[in-house]
Amino acid sequence: MMSVHPSIQTIGDEIWLVEDERNNLKIHYRLKEIIYAEQSPCQHVMIVDSYDFGRMLVLDGIVQTTSLDGAIYNEMISHVPLSTHPDPKKVLIIGGGDCGVAKEVLKYPNVQHVDMVEIDEKVVELCCKYLPEVAGNAAEDSRLHIHFADGVRFVEEATNQYDVVIVDSSDPIGPAVELFSEAFYQNVSRILKEDGLMVCQSQSPLFHAEVTKQTFDRISRLFPHTKLYMATVPTYPGGVWSFTLGSKKYQEANKLPANISTFYVNHKLLKDSFTLPTFVQERILD
Amino acid sequence: MMSVHPSIQTIGDEIWLVEDERNNLKIHYRLKEIIYAEQSPCQHVMIVDSYDFGRMLVLDGIVQTTSLDGAIYNEMISHVPLSTHPDPKKVLIIGGGDCGVAKEVLKYPNVQHVDMVEIDEKVVELCCKYLPEVAGNAAEDSRLHIHFADGVRFVEEATNQYDVVIVDSSDPIGPAVELFSEAFYQNVSRILKEDGLMVCQSQSPLFHAEVTKQTFDRISRLFPHTKLYMATVPTYPGGVWSFTLGSKKYQEANKLPANISTFYVNHKLLKDSFTLPTFVQERILD
Repeated sequence: MMSVHPSIQTIGDEIWLVEDERNNLKIHYRLKEIIYAEQSPCQHVMIVDSYDFGRMLVLDGIVQTTSLDGAIYNEMISHVPLSTHPDPKKVLIIGGGDCGVAKEVLKYPNVQHVDMVEIDEKVVELCCKYLPEVAGNAAEDSRLHIHFADGVRFVEEATNQYDVVIVDSSDPIGPAVELFSEAFYQNVSRILKEDGLMVCQSQSPLFHAEVTKQTFDRISRLFPHTKLYMATVPTYPGGVWSFTLGSKKYQEANKLPANISTFYVNHKLLKDSFTLPTFVQERILD
Repeated sequence: MMSVHPSIQTIGDEIWLVEDERNNLKIHYRLKEIIYAEQSPCQHVMIVDSYDFGRMLVLDGIVQTTSLDGAIYNEMISHVPLSTHPDPKKVLIIGGGDCGVAKEVLKYPNVQHVDMVEIDEKVVELCCKYLPEVAGNAAEDSRLHIHFADGVRFVEEATNQYDVVIVDSSDPIGPAVELFSEAFYQNVSRILKEDGLMVCQSQSPLFHAEVTKQTFDRISRLFPHTKLYMATVPTYPGGVWSFTLGSKKYQEANKLPANISTFYVNHKLLKDSFTLPTFVQERILD
């Protein structure tokens, strides 16, 4: 028995998901089918099959990842830091319940241990079952250790040391707001080795310029090398998306390891993603 | 007295534009105001003021350009060809009724003569009046010669020779379909000087891969040097947008002229826009 979210609207025999993330822009996706819909202890979780983007993970009515374009975001938040660190053995993923980031990170042969801290067990279970294009077989890899816990508490209490920390958060509203705080980044810096580096998604510099700038400024105060890079994420509002890299030592993206198969990234694209449009240079970096 | 398009929906005291370009994806923009709405001899034309994108030009219910992000598209379709040609004196713009491409082209001091062929006089009049962020003062520049005519017929009959031709078409449905035909590109090639070059928008390689590939293949058959480049256009469905450059001689984007002021492009971004994601290389270029 399913408990459908109010974002689902039925018009005649058509089913639509109405994404109402911002007050003044709504995106309506026509659905073939609602595969799963339940309230988890953390949030409302749906897996739906859409006409234009294939299967989608929808949390509290907001599209998080899709079969069609999920790879763009997951590859960009993973391969830039993993290829910048010359020998990433131990990686921490905060969030990332769809397992897409874990899938990309585990493509690196020198990665020995990945801790993934996701608050919602249901999200992991459903994405492994229903979103194989996004999650792959990540959950079956013995190097992946999933902790169903709060990411903010995890980094507060962690005593491990990591080479790379990837913060795959949702938007800075509600539960994810602390993942954009200075105290959180301080803890991330503390649990990184002395040549470690972190990356986080830092929203759209066109639509959330203040969040992008604040994130960049906070990370700049903690890391000697801080860089912004960009990609187009079609299902995120505005499409123009930014990521912030904070690094204690390494700065340049190296070549991807041989035999890595990707949908979006390649060596030149990794390097060129740091080329910023003029308005981003002026609004965020100045 | 206004004649509002059926894409306008009123809910209580809220006004919404419902863009229904594709069957299975609708984007709803909340509007502050409908500034102009009439049927022209060619199409239904509206100027509206939206909460999220500022003022927008809407033709037959589809958003064409906005105050917020119009510069991205207009700069990318203009500065790549103009900076690739070492001395662009004579430029032809097909379409471009919002005058945004003309505005960018006229920033080049060596440009002496621009022919702009737009079918709908009303679009030019309204954009000059209500969309100054897009149109600037282009229409007042004595180098700009506007022809209210059909672009396909114009290039069939033209005997002039151009350095650069820019095809700023709408989507390849309805009136714009001939602007994507092989016969049209042949005429463009004929009216280009022996070192001339052309550029056109070639849709989204994620959502309209067949159009992007067909356009690239058709131009490849006519020009010795054909290249695809990309940008993110937030208000176009999918965001990931492509342009195809067909050139008789020159291949490399040069530096932007000194003192050109831009919102999006800079020299490095012009060059790096030719770096293509892996899926584009595989789907379009192979």
